[in-house]
Amino acid sequence: MTRELLIEAGYGGRLDLREGELLEVVNVEGQQICDFFAFNANDVKEFLSPAHCRATLRRVTLGVDDKLVSVYRRPMIEIVQDTSDGVHDICFPSCDRQRYLLGFGIPDHRNCRANLAEAVADFGIPYEYLPDPINFFQNTPIRSDGSFETGTSPARPGDKIVLRALMNLIVVGSACPHDIYPTNGERITDVKLVVRND
Amino acid sequence: MTRELLIEAGYGGRLDLREGELLEVVNVEGQQICDFFAFNANDVKEFLSPAHCRATLRRVTLGVDDKLVSVYRRPMIEIVQDTSDGVHDICFPSCDRQRYLLGFGIPDHRNCRANLAEAVADFGIPYEYLPDPINFFQNTPIRSDGSFETGTSPARPGDKIVLRALMNLIVVGSACPHDIYPTNGERITDVKLVVRND
Repeated sequence: MTRELLIEAGYGGRLDLREGELLEVVNVEGQQICDFFAFNANDVKEFLSPAHCRATLRRVTLGVDDKLVSVYRRPMIEIVQDTSDGVHDICFPSCDRQRYLLGFGIPDHRNCRANLAEAVADFGIPYEYLPDPINFFQNTPIRSDGSFETGTSPARPGDKIVLRALMNLIVVGSACPHDIYPTNGERITDVKLVVRND
Repeated sequence: MTRELLIEAGYGGRLDLREGELLEVVNVEGQQICDFFAFNANDVKEFLSPAHCRATLRRVTLGVDDKLVSVYRRPMIEIVQDTSDGVHDICFPSCDRQRYLLGFGIPDHRNCRANLAEAVADFGIPYEYLPDPINFFQNTPIRSDGSFETGTSPARPGDKIVLRALMNLIVVGSACPHDIYPTNGERITDVKLVVRND
């Protein structure tokens, strides 16, 4: 049985995953970043932690067979397939209200951090303690001098990364609303989450 | 007037800083990493955020004149002097109980995350939501392929990084207890915090 969740451009979406299920994060029209978050369904204080992923993987890149870990360094998710060119980011925080206000003078732009806050409002996590994201399809590699390069996502229409849940999870995706720099290409577009358990 | 706090090797220490005061983080015997944390003294939910520092600086390195920001992207600290070779880390989480247990089979090793938890126990921050550190003097540069290189801290005895408080702060330093890999050299040593307000 397959379950699907279409996340509209600029918005967030949430779904439950059982241990062992496969989740496809699909770049519907291409060039679209998906900020991704995961929580242990049995204890939502345990979250997917990019900092602990960096330390466990000993790198800032992602690839097939990588296990992504929680703040307790416990494996939560395994990457089982990636049809994109493997361009993802685990260093940047979500875009947030302050990013658009301070950077561009826009006071109330939609943003990935607010999308996460809305999606998990029932968890009661204070705004300050919302986790940082895994930025699937985000093109911000680190140059040899330690600076970030910022480019448009090279993901093609239909590109997907496939994840296996290693515990019961609640996951959130945010179809990044950043429409000022061309990080998401010429326009922001949808992200689709597909769950397969067969 | 000068205030000093000697942080014993492997332990943590905390002090208050008034806006405008200068804080010297001193590598007493050299090669010693100091995990560093800061909180807005008027609202301790606002913390120094390495993720938001990376995004604001657009790099993973630190230098003089850099402003380090909070989870609200507000400048908390300015780097005003650095006598070391500028080797610091803003990508790694603190070492924690799980790091020593999973990595080395040691169940109850001292660790920077527990040092932070003890130092700010009165804040009531749940363990999971303790902030990630700025790792002063840590030698973990990122290679061109995105992997971390791990080396001994090159800091010399007496090397210091000098920070200006841009708001009233509560800061915590942890003299990293990692004595397995030679990240801190042949042995772990003390860190000294010196506050100058003249």
